[in-house]
Amino acid sequence: MNKRLNVSTFIGCEAEYDEADIVLFSVPFDGTTSFRPGTRFAGQAIRPDSYGLETYSPYLQKDLEDTAIYDGGDLDMPFGNPEKALEVVSHYSKEVLQDGKKFLMIGGEHLVSLPTIEAAYEKYPNLHVIHLDAHTDLRDEYIGEKLSHATVIRRCHDFLGDGRIFQFGIRSGTKHEFDWAKEHTYLEPFSLTTLKEKIAELKDVPVYITIDFDVLDPSVFPGTGTPEPGGISYKELLEAIQQFQELNQVVAADVVEFSPPYDTTGASTAAACKTVREMLLTLVD
Amino acid sequence: MNKRLNVSTFIGCEAEYDEADIVLFSVPFDGTTSFRPGTRFAGQAIRPDSYGLETYSPYLQKDLEDTAIYDGGDLDMPFGNPEKALEVVSHYSKEVLQDGKKFLMIGGEHLVSLPTIEAAYEKYPNLHVIHLDAHTDLRDEYIGEKLSHATVIRRCHDFLGDGRIFQFGIRSGTKHEFDWAKEHTYLEPFSLTTLKEKIAELKDVPVYITIDFDVLDPSVFPGTGTPEPGGISYKELLEAIQQFQELNQVVAADVVEFSPPYDTTGASTAAACKTVREMLLTLVD
Amino acid sequence: MNKRLNVSTFIGCEAEYDEADIVLFSVPFDGTTSFRPGTRFAGQAIRPDSYGLETYSPYLQKDLEDTAIYDGGDLDMPFGNPEKALEVVSHYSKEVLQDGKKFLMIGGEHLVSLPTIEAAYEKYPNLHVIHLDAHTDLRDEYIGEKLSHATVIRRCHDFLGDGRIFQFGIRSGTKHEFDWAKEHTYLEPFSLTTLKEKIAELKDVPVYITIDFDVLDPSVFPGTGTPEPGGISYKELLEAIQQFQELNQVVAADVVEFSPPYDTTGASTAAACKTVREMLLTLVD
Amino acid sequence: MNKRLNVSTFIGCEAEYDEADIVLFSVPFDGTTSFRPGTRFAGQAIRPDSYGLETYSPYLQKDLEDTAIYDGGDLDMPFGNPEKALEVVSHYSKEVLQDGKKFLMIGGEHLVSLPTIEAAYEKYPNLHVIHLDAHTDLRDEYIGEKLSHATVIRRCHDFLGDGRIFQFGIRSGTKHEFDWAKEHTYLEPFSLTTLKEKIAELKDVPVYITIDFDVLDPSVFPGTGTPEPGGISYKELLEAIQQFQELNQVVAADVVEFSPPYDTTGASTAAACKTVREMLLTLVD
Amino acid sequence: MNKRLNVSTFIGCEAEYDEADIVLFSVPFDGTTSFRPGTRFAGQAIRPDSYGLETYSPYLQKDLEDTAIYDGGDLDMPFGNPEKALEVVSHYSKEVLQDGKKFLMIGGEHLVSLPTIEAAYEKYPNLHVIHLDAHTDLRDEYIGEKLSHATVIRRCHDFLGDGRIFQFGIRSGTKHEFDWAKEHTYLEPFSLTTLKEKIAELKDVPVYITIDFDVLDPSVFPGTGTPEPGGISYKELLEAIQQFQELNQVVAADVVEFSPPYDTTGASTAAACKTVREMLLTLVD
Amino acid sequence: MNKRLNVSTFIGCEAEYDEADIVLFSVPFDGTTSFRPGTRFAGQAIRPDSYGLETYSPYLQKDLEDTAIYDGGDLDMPFGNPEKALEVVSHYSKEVLQDGKKFLMIGGEHLVSLPTIEAAYEKYPNLHVIHLDAHTDLRDEYIGEKLSHATVIRRCHDFLGDGRIFQFGIRSGTKHEFDWAKEHTYLEPFSLTTLKEKIAELKDVPVYITIDFDVLDPSVFPGTGTPEPGGISYKELLEAIQQFQELNQVVAADVVEFSPPYDTTGASTAAACKTVREMLLTLVD
Repeated sequence: MNKRLNVSTFIGCEAEYDEADIVLFSVPFDGTTSFRPGTRFAGQAIRPDSYGLETYSPYLQKDLEDTAIYDGGDLDMPFGNPEKALEVVSHYSKEVLQDGKKFLMIGGEHLVSLPTIEAAYEKYPNLHVIHLDAHTDLRDEYIGEKLSHATVIRRCHDFLGDGRIFQFGIRSGTKHEFDWAKEHTYLEPFSLTTLKEKIAELKDVPVYITIDFDVLDPSVFPGTGTPEPGGISYKELLEAIQQFQELNQVVAADVVEFSPPYDTTGASTAAACKTVREMLLTLVD
Repeated sequence: MNKRLNVSTFIGCEAEYDEADIVLFSVPFDGTTSFRPGTRFAGQAIRPDSYGLETYSPYLQKDLEDTAIYDGGDLDMPFGNPEKALEVVSHYSKEVLQDGKKFLMIGGEHLVSLPTIEAAYEKYPNLHVIHLDAHTDLRDEYIGEKLSHATVIRRCHDFLGDGRIFQFGIRSGTKHEFDWAKEHTYLEPFSLTTLKEKIAELKDVPVYITIDFDVLDPSVFPGTGTPEPGGISYKELLEAIQQFQELNQVVAADVVEFSPPYDTTGASTAAACKTVREMLLTLVD
Repeated sequence: MNKRLNVSTFIGCEAEYDEADIVLFSVPFDGTTSFRPGTRFAGQAIRPDSYGLETYSPYLQKDLEDTAIYDGGDLDMPFGNPEKALEVVSHYSKEVLQDGKKFLMIGGEHLVSLPTIEAAYEKYPNLHVIHLDAHTDLRDEYIGEKLSHATVIRRCHDFLGDGRIFQFGIRSGTKHEFDWAKEHTYLEPFSLTTLKEKIAELKDVPVYITIDFDVLDPSVFPGTGTPEPGGISYKELLEAIQQFQELNQVVAADVVEFSPPYDTTGASTAAACKTVREMLLTLVD
Repeated sequence: MNKRLNVSTFIGCEAEYDEADIVLFSVPFDGTTSFRPGTRFAGQAIRPDSYGLETYSPYLQKDLEDTAIYDGGDLDMPFGNPEKALEVVSHYSKEVLQDGKKFLMIGGEHLVSLPTIEAAYEKYPNLHVIHLDAHTDLRDEYIGEKLSHATVIRRCHDFLGDGRIFQFGIRSGTKHEFDWAKEHTYLEPFSLTTLKEKIAELKDVPVYITIDFDVLDPSVFPGTGTPEPGGISYKELLEAIQQFQELNQVVAADVVEFSPPYDTTGASTAAACKTVREMLLTLVD
Repeated sequence: MNKRLNVSTFIGCEAEYDEADIVLFSVPFDGTTSFRPGTRFAGQAIRPDSYGLETYSPYLQKDLEDTAIYDGGDLDMPFGNPEKALEVVSHYSKEVLQDGKKFLMIGGEHLVSLPTIEAAYEKYPNLHVIHLDAHTDLRDEYIGEKLSHATVIRRCHDFLGDGRIFQFGIRSGTKHEFDWAKEHTYLEPFSLTTLKEKIAELKDVPVYITIDFDVLDPSVFPGTGTPEPGGISYKELLEAIQQFQELNQVVAADVVEFSPPYDTTGASTAAACKTVREMLLTLVD
Repeated sequence: MNKRLNVSTFIGCEAEYDEADIVLFSVPFDGTTSFRPGTRFAGQAIRPDSYGLETYSPYLQKDLEDTAIYDGGDLDMPFGNPEKALEVVSHYSKEVLQDGKKFLMIGGEHLVSLPTIEAAYEKYPNLHVIHLDAHTDLRDEYIGEKLSHATVIRRCHDFLGDGRIFQFGIRSGTKHEFDWAKEHTYLEPFSLTTLKEKIAELKDVPVYITIDFDVLDPSVFPGTGTPEPGGISYKELLEAIQQFQELNQVVAADVVEFSPPYDTTGASTAAACKTVREMLLTLVD
């Protein structure tokens, strides 16, 4: 008889923290979401359904069981106070990096990528960011707020500067955001066609990958806060992930904006689980 | 051919502001919600479905069409900034009261009642509050925050003081909250049995009524953020509203915590609509 | 190996037409529904789920298997033409009565009760109607139409006249409808308290029972076109059905306004199935 | 404090009627729907969720805010009387055209396109129709009715005659309908491959575009009355809309058959909203 | 930084096994379910949502935090082999009892109560069973099978014998089952009226309490495999639990038949969580 | 007046058994399902919704009405006993083949294909199997069980041997399963690219086609037990079916793993219905 307190981790992620090379954690925060909230529940939804998957990826021909991965669960978040929430994430992700581990964060809304990208930048000043999303996220402020899911990449640009951000699949924004991107980021609208050539350029620099699930078409991933039709298919996302294997220094990554209350069929949960598996395997050296 | 821009009001509430005796408005704010968010959509869900009702109440034998009611729609809210959000509500509700009108507010989470009760208190220093809810809402802080849906009635006590708050139907809280209530508020747990006698006491003082929809049993009203089994039936709520007619000075009221994404059948929406109608008619002199 | 074409009947209703004492049929018509359509699917939803029930009723201590009941399924309906649809129902129900059988009809919207009540009246000129509903259904016309789910009982009054219609549970209507009812029907608002005494009066006359499922509270029966909070519980409906056993001449009956697309949990389907069983057993001599 | 009665328009469509170049309106009619009803709710579902979009289209590089668009809301419809309903639509659309404006209509079921196409034909006798749909809609009658969502394009042929109707994406119909189409319309089954060349032919004639949302695959657009697998992707629809920009005389258009009760995730609503934006921008000169 | 592997227990149940007085575990088995499956997911659904509750019960005035409770999570179950599944449960529950602890089991379907009741009987030969349910569960076999959710109480009678089983709230069964009960069990149909007097009789004997959630009305608890209208309210269940406090020897208990896929609003999950809290507190001496 | 007991068949399948060339039947069994159950309801969900289709296929240019097809409905299944369930299917399918007819079976979980493939093999010892699926289904046992939805193709290999099984679209399995497949079956991962050439090889041998609906992407077909992102589109399935027309000896076929409780929009039901129509027409000589 197993007498351990009930543990609930992502499939194949039962290593203890100290022995782990990779850390998985989730951030139940959706405090600046402007349309449909609920991303706070992403971590809770993903873990149990991950057992509908195998630990083996026939795409990458790697197995989660061949690596030591620790799953720390949901971080404890304050409610109604974005600044404090971001501090918690900042503290946690910096500690993981200081301990010489990589991490994959499950959002939460996209704003939670700000402290993790900043933490990675602190450790790797030459950090570059690959950003898959439907939205530019380049506003300078949103309804008067500097910190918002709609400003997160702009806030990252504040410290990263020009030439460091590579955006793909973007299909929504103001005219001003698209114009601003022309001078400050690399932005491919609508698709991922140029991802391969950009990856070749980024082959040997430290890279952080941030995937907003709404880069997928809402037919594939309806369970998100701001569904935007005309996105990529799941096969296209899988091809992108296969291309990521060419990168030699993926230092951390995140997947954000999965909102379980809008996933009435479970198909978004399944897509989220599979993406977590593939991205964990991407972090394996 | 009607050439007016598409107007969407609650049924029977098409008076212009200046001619109105009663103002209806809604507050799309759920920024401190700790469990299931979504109350931001309450106003949008209630208005179109109100046309499934009649304007006439056979319970109160009054008709919405016999009173001038203005429906101002959703207030514009900032995201991720509770203080600013409460200021917007405060400003609006004070202006309505200054213009000599009564109001019914549709939440949003319960925290939005703080500025409206405060506005009513500013005008009516002898204000008393009738509070129907499943939860005490009497914490002094919640996960470190003073402003929260779980502290709202405590915050009202900060300015109202002892002997002004009358709570009914309460069935969830910490032991400390229940103990605190014994000294500072009137609290009937589980039911509304003593409502009638308390109304007799409050007959001639100014009264604000705040109804958290989760006072209803989740069978009746599943579409709420923190469903708590063991609540009252809709018939019991209707009886309470009939008893409210004995109050001579209901100066304002609100109905809060309706979260449409969890109302998969529309039954909660119907209950919310009917409650809005009955509470509007309660405000009629 | 059973080689019969796939038959789908209500549980325990597999008698052939000629040998049957009771006929069950359903009418997939919702052409005048003003709010949420979908009652056309009621018959299809009820039949398979009836196998979640037993054939035996511990309330009435009768068993469907002890009576010969034929289930004719959905009638073929034209679309977009209420007059023709009513003719089909009229023709079918008259033929059943002429063949010396009783029937239970599953709606469809309430308008489909007009031809069946008329058919019963044609055979039993002294017909009385017991009507359980949330709505008066007594308008003379609805948005210009004489034939509507909102006018059906008024249309029945056109041929039945005063003193023949007994309405219970009513909690929605215009003020004019409630006033009209005072002179032309017996109407108990909100509840079924007086049903027992009225049944005593109707003990020996021919009675048609029409049950609009929205007489039930939306907590019990959300799957309906116009949910109206404040209705009766399922136990109260079961008590009413037990009282119906005192009637010596129930000649036909119907249950209407079940809209499966709004029954996301299946609870309304279960309630509809059980009501069909109890009403079929009510028709047994 | 804004004191205007609550207005609810599609995003970026707040011009007054008189100053507007384009009129948006919706028709809550689904009276002849043969399978899953609910398109009556399309207009109500689209307007609030349109605020999840931007007003700017990166595909067409146009912005709704650069044009004066009036949103008249839902037309008032009778229930259960298709002829009267069509008259209301006919009257409204003719008046808009007489006032020198273009319009985009949101259905409702496809039958509502009959009066609007007729209105456009009355003003532009050389009218041609581009029709995107899963179904031929070419029956001469449907279960005895001449006016039906399944006959609407055949009824348009009654007055337009041969050579005027161009159908794409069609993948359902009787053998007779497909045979009939060979002689009387242009019909490309399954896809939109030849749309580009047909648009080149229609470049300078007056064109009405009618889009039945079920031309999209049900994975993309499940919220429709008769989902038909094997349809086009949303990207293919966006490409078609980009090709429409080559047409010099798009005089009016519609999007029909969106049934919100079957859109449990909101993805169909998002697709409907985006299509409305793109089609409004298509009407801009 | 917390470095423990992600633990997921019921709220307030974080004691280690050895120090615990009470053990909570769940059994993801629904292999003989005849109608709507899904009870296998009950444990996974209950644990995270329990955090929407408080640990304090104002009904019992006890707090989970005042007792040492261990939550062992879901047992590992084989698929498609009921005998093996029951063995796993048997082994686990016997070990817990041998270790001098009490347990609360969360089903799964009702058949999983057979090995736990048997384990309790083995330790307490004078065991009596209180059974709240909509169904008799007294068939001798069901479609040829001796082991089934429909035979479970009959199987318990095989070893307990007459006079030991007390059934309440029963409202569905064959005529034969109701007749059999008259001779072998105590059975109150429809309600819990006599529970209080029976508890007085059982005050000092060892008692096992098995609660099938379908004893509740489907309005309260739609998320179950075989919803049966006409059940008790949640307030009535709370009263029953308060009466259980009079029992001096509750040795173990279970709550079964919660099927999350049919709980589209979360209201059944909330009711299940609250029942687990109250039953855990019932096990506290 | 039609006086036949209510018959419910798939559209266009009303031939009597003796005159039929093709037999359609369904198997309500999901007893070994490891993740999300519910495939037992597939047959009940498909039949009524098939009337949303036409009997004519514009892809194959054939019509169901031109062939005699008998629909036998759901087979009667025991609960909780996989061996007995498979015997029922075995007996039925052998009898159909002995009577000189072909069949299409609707699952149920994939394990139900074992007895039907065995029955086909008994009659056609040179049988080859075309298998479309997301999962290899090649485990030798699953959690200790030899008979499971996860072992079904391995069990078929037990009697068919090497070189007879052709698997397409596979994207999930253990590393060991993929390795095993290299030696014993033909397996194309992820897509159907080589289907055409394999069909050319199998042109004149007896072929059984088994389609697990989860070969489709979850965007197309969420209503399945184990959704696996990255699958084929519905257009790709339609192309595969068109290629099947090149086979001269399709002796039987099945479509399995449709779980209606997870099809909240009806889109999976529509896809299942269309696939049944196309596969029935594939069986026509």
